[in-house]
Amino acid sequence: MATHEKGFFTEDDSVAVVTGRNINARDERLKQVMEVITRKLHEAVKEIEPTQDEWMQAILFLTRTGQTCNEWRQEYILLSDVLGVSMLVDAINNRKPSGASESTVLGPFHVADAPELPMGANICLDAKGEDMFIEGRILDTSGKPIADAVIDVWQANDEGFYDVQQKGIQPDFNLRGIFRTGPDGRYCFRAVKPKYYPIPDDGPVGQLLGQLGRHPYRPAHLHYIIKADGYETLTTHIFDPDDPYINSDAVFGVKESLLAKFNRMHDPARAQEYGFAGDFWDVDHDFVLARKGET
Amino acid sequence: MATHEKGFFTEDDSVAVVTGRNINARDERLKQVMEVITRKLHEAVKEIEPTQDEWMQAILFLTRTGQTCNEWRQEYILLSDVLGVSMLVDAINNRKPSGASESTVLGPFHVADAPELPMGANICLDAKGEDMFIEGRILDTSGKPIADAVIDVWQANDEGFYDVQQKGIQPDFNLRGIFRTGPDGRYCFRAVKPKYYPIPDDGPVGQLLGQLGRHPYRPAHLHYIIKADGYETLTTHIFDPDDPYINSDAVFGVKESLLAKFNRMHDPARAQEYGFAGDFWDVDHDFVLARKGET
Repeated sequence: MATHEKGFFTEDDSVAVVTGRNINARDERLKQVMEVITRKLHEAVKEIEPTQDEWMQAILFLTRTGQTCNEWRQEYILLSDVLGVSMLVDAINNRKPSGASESTVLGPFHVADAPELPMGANICLDAKGEDMFIEGRILDTSGKPIADAVIDVWQANDEGFYDVQQKGIQPDFNLRGIFRTGPDGRYCFRAVKPKYYPIPDDGPVGQLLGQLGRHPYRPAHLHYIIKADGYETLTTHIFDPDDPYINSDAVFGVKESLLAKFNRMHDPARAQEYGFAGDFWDVDHDFVLARKGET
Repeated sequence: MATHEKGFFTEDDSVAVVTGRNINARDERLKQVMEVITRKLHEAVKEIEPTQDEWMQAILFLTRTGQTCNEWRQEYILLSDVLGVSMLVDAINNRKPSGASESTVLGPFHVADAPELPMGANICLDAKGEDMFIEGRILDTSGKPIADAVIDVWQANDEGFYDVQQKGIQPDFNLRGIFRTGPDGRYCFRAVKPKYYPIPDDGPVGQLLGQLGRHPYRPAHLHYIIKADGYETLTTHIFDPDDPYINSDAVFGVKESLLAKFNRMHDPARAQEYGFAGDFWDVDHDFVLARKGET
């Protein structure tokens, strides 16, 4: 009997020794997950060959990351975000058929009970920032409009803050709204141009970013959850392609298909129609939903 | 330019997108370590294909593990232990030349200032447990005795507790001692037979062990740190091969070469010589130190 079959540790057989202990796992899925985690973890350790000091630094980093979490802050999600793991899990769970709009991460600032508003409403409640008009269509993958699609939109303001981060400063539900399409599948609403903003960078994850020479910023974007009966729900963003951080989103949320041109408009007639005082930003972006089960 | 070269996320290029951000890392070693960690983490996620719920369970497990740590408890070291990572890091940092004794993990119960005792002393200060006599030699890899080797030994008692776990119940420095070899390289001391014991299993790591159908026990052992001028310091255990958990140490500390026969002796003459009341356990185990730089 080989030494590892007796349960004794050897460097060469380290994975088999450890995973061999899980034969009585209560759950087949957990057993499978722990087999992969153990194998990849041992592969990483064998490739890195950490010193005892480096190993202890890793232990203390993981400990601090857990201890930075509280009711309002989830530093492990942040770590997952900055290592691209959140986007990878999102991608794996949201593989779309050809032509359908791509997903990206939900983020921590969605609010469940935003108000349903009439099409064309202004979601900016405090008149702060540069006016913006956003319009487009909700389509299926054959290009047909989807009626009764529900569009839940939220965004940061012109200083890069969501309402929930500035309670008492921004009005409640500022820059949030829910819209429902008619038979033409069209949507439009008014807002202000959002600004890039940093993820929380005063904790262990921010320190790691600093040591890696990385900044903590997310490029300006609008969040969407789009639902329609018979279609896969789409959770995504659209991004300003001219944002200074568009090629270096700290959480890797940008996909090429999520770039939406933000056009600066000098059009007094349209400005008057929208109730804007002068020049404004104009975004025209269609979203394509996949039918349930469509691949 | 490929989409990932613009910093945009794709599932296929996820590793390149993330590690490509580290070009300005302040430290080459950190950059290398994070490249391996990111690559292996993404490989694991791609193989596991976690649901969003499973991903959140992992986030919450890591969070709880950090939050279980305090001044007295390091749950992340425990996690490293039960996944075999601590033993792997120990193995990588303590590769020994042929014939030298193998290392194993230090564990959390070493105390820096144990008393130096005369050879043959009894380290059991409360007369609890079954008497044991331990002897052997400290040798170099050519079989020559090493003089002035310093042997730092510590162990759990007959109920599986270290003195530091039972302050006020066990005497201070119970079952600890430091011995120094003479020209013959021989050592001997008296003690009691240690018992197996559980690692702390009331936290997230204990729950994980339970879900994996694993017990939390470490088989009975004695700890050693052996130092001698000109030789690599050896941190190791010896184990009782007849222990019920010898093939399933919760932290994978057992190596075949660390098994030391624990012989039950009925020898009234020797018992009288050692001051033992009757039958006793006898262990004869040599340790072989590698010269510094010897490979």
